Amino acid sequence: MTKFRLTLEYDGAGFAGWQVQAGGQRTVQGVLEAALARIAGHACRVAGASRTDSGVHAEGQVASVALETPLGAEALRRAANGVLPPDLAVTAAAEVPEAFHARHAARGKLYRYRIWNGASPSPLRAARTHRVFTPLDLAAMRAAAQALEGPHDFRCFQAAGGAPGSTQRTLRRVAVEGEARAEVRLLVEGDAFLRHMVRILAGTLVEVGIGRRDPAGMPALLAAGQRSRAGPTAPARGLCLVRVDY
Amino acid sequence: MTKFRLTLEYDGAGFAGWQVQAGGQRTVQGVLEAALARIAGHACRVAGASRTDSGVHAEGQVASVALETPLGAEALRRAANGVLPPDLAVTAAAEVPEAFHARHAARGKLYRYRIWNGASPSPLRAARTHRVFTPLDLAAMRAAAQALEGPHDFRCFQAAGGAPGSTQRTLRRVAVEGEARAEVRLLVEGDAFLRHMVRILAGTLVEVGIGRRDPAGMPALLAAGQRSRAGPTAPARGLCLVRVDY
Repeated sequence: MTKFRLTLEYDGAGFAGWQVQAGGQRTVQGVLEAALARIAGHACRVAGASRTDSGVHAEGQVASVALETPLGAEALRRAANGVLPPDLAVTAAAEVPEAFHARHAARGKLYRYRIWNGASPSPLRAARTHRVFTPLDLAAMRAAAQALEGPHDFRCFQAAGGAPGSTQRTLRRVAVEGEARAEVRLLVEGDAFLRHMVRILAGTLVEVGIGRRDPAGMPALLAAGQRSRAGPTAPARGLCLVRVDY
Repeated sequence: MTKFRLTLEYDGAGFAGWQVQAGGQRTVQGVLEAALARIAGHACRVAGASRTDSGVHAEGQVASVALETPLGAEALRRAANGVLPPDLAVTAAAEVPEAFHARHAARGKLYRYRIWNGASPSPLRAARTHRVFTPLDLAAMRAAAQALEGPHDFRCFQAAGGAPGSTQRTLRRVAVEGEARAEVRLLVEGDAFLRHMVRILAGTLVEVGIGRRDPAGMPALLAAGQRSRAGPTAPARGLCLVRVDY
């Protein structure tokens, strides 16, 4: 068996998220496992660095898989792209030590959340952005974002029904880029993330941006640790997993 | 009647081009006329600066239309976006003199042609780019592009069955941006364009980029004036009308 690390790009619109589910919905993991099984001639199990939600995109998801194949990494990348559908591609492949696991070995991830804040709809951006009508106050959003950087208990930014265990995480960067009345991008980099964390964080920063929430309230929100006090979960289509660091 | 100039953004994938056609296919002009008729309460005829082909996108198409409506330009923009489908939007509107005609008054247009030249497919770019597998020689493409700038008879870059009349046009800029093995963008700016001109120009420059055509052959190609000696018509999905100048 050879262990491979695969870098993946996908358009999340056609997938019910990363993870294989009972019920046979089309998932990234499921489509990838079927393609690799066809190439290797045996069933396989792929581990993903991030279990992206239904509709979430990825420029740089990372997966690991053990395959019984004579192919080297580069030949495997080409073979996989020959059988994968157009909305999923392997953009890089490497042989890695047998112990490598894409999720356990990840030291950090970078997510991007795109917001379209124009006065008119943007048909060319609609599939990949969350539209916010009210002009955003980026200075207020930046003040709130800064208060989220560092090590915190992010319990309030975890979806109800999130996995048990510690909710302590470290965000290395929460940046607000772009401009109001045009495209605004949130860049969120951290060691690890809770379920729906970036989308709830985006929904909360949008509330700050439209003046519905005081940016000075972030420390109290974190301290209270209640999901109900944070903002709504922003739509999946605005979110993209940009990079996984090892 | 009030004459309006409307700036339009659309995702071309769902449209059989700009122009209303016999047969009732879904076109940008048709969908826009139906929306404006609903707002104004009377049938109307819209003129577009460019008759974009089926599948071609626009960030800045311009249309003119005369409407019997009490609405001002800003209210018309909002009303139109309230009834238009998600793949077509009015991004700006202005009242203009009655004589204004979006096509006749246009002094120039800027088109962008996007090429994905990566070693792997790019699912997030697939709908808006033409994929070229062979690494592109951008220096050769730039040399060929430069030979196309200026006033020329562009007959060889006109689709068979193009409109009769002069094929003399002036290209103010033919730029090749980006990098090989990643995204490459052609920016083509000119006073007016022949049918399929930018797509045939893109197909020809791609042939130069993959080494199948000598960049020094551009003057002879222009001089010969034969469509059959130019490259193939590159796919519509890579093309976007960026801007119309008045």
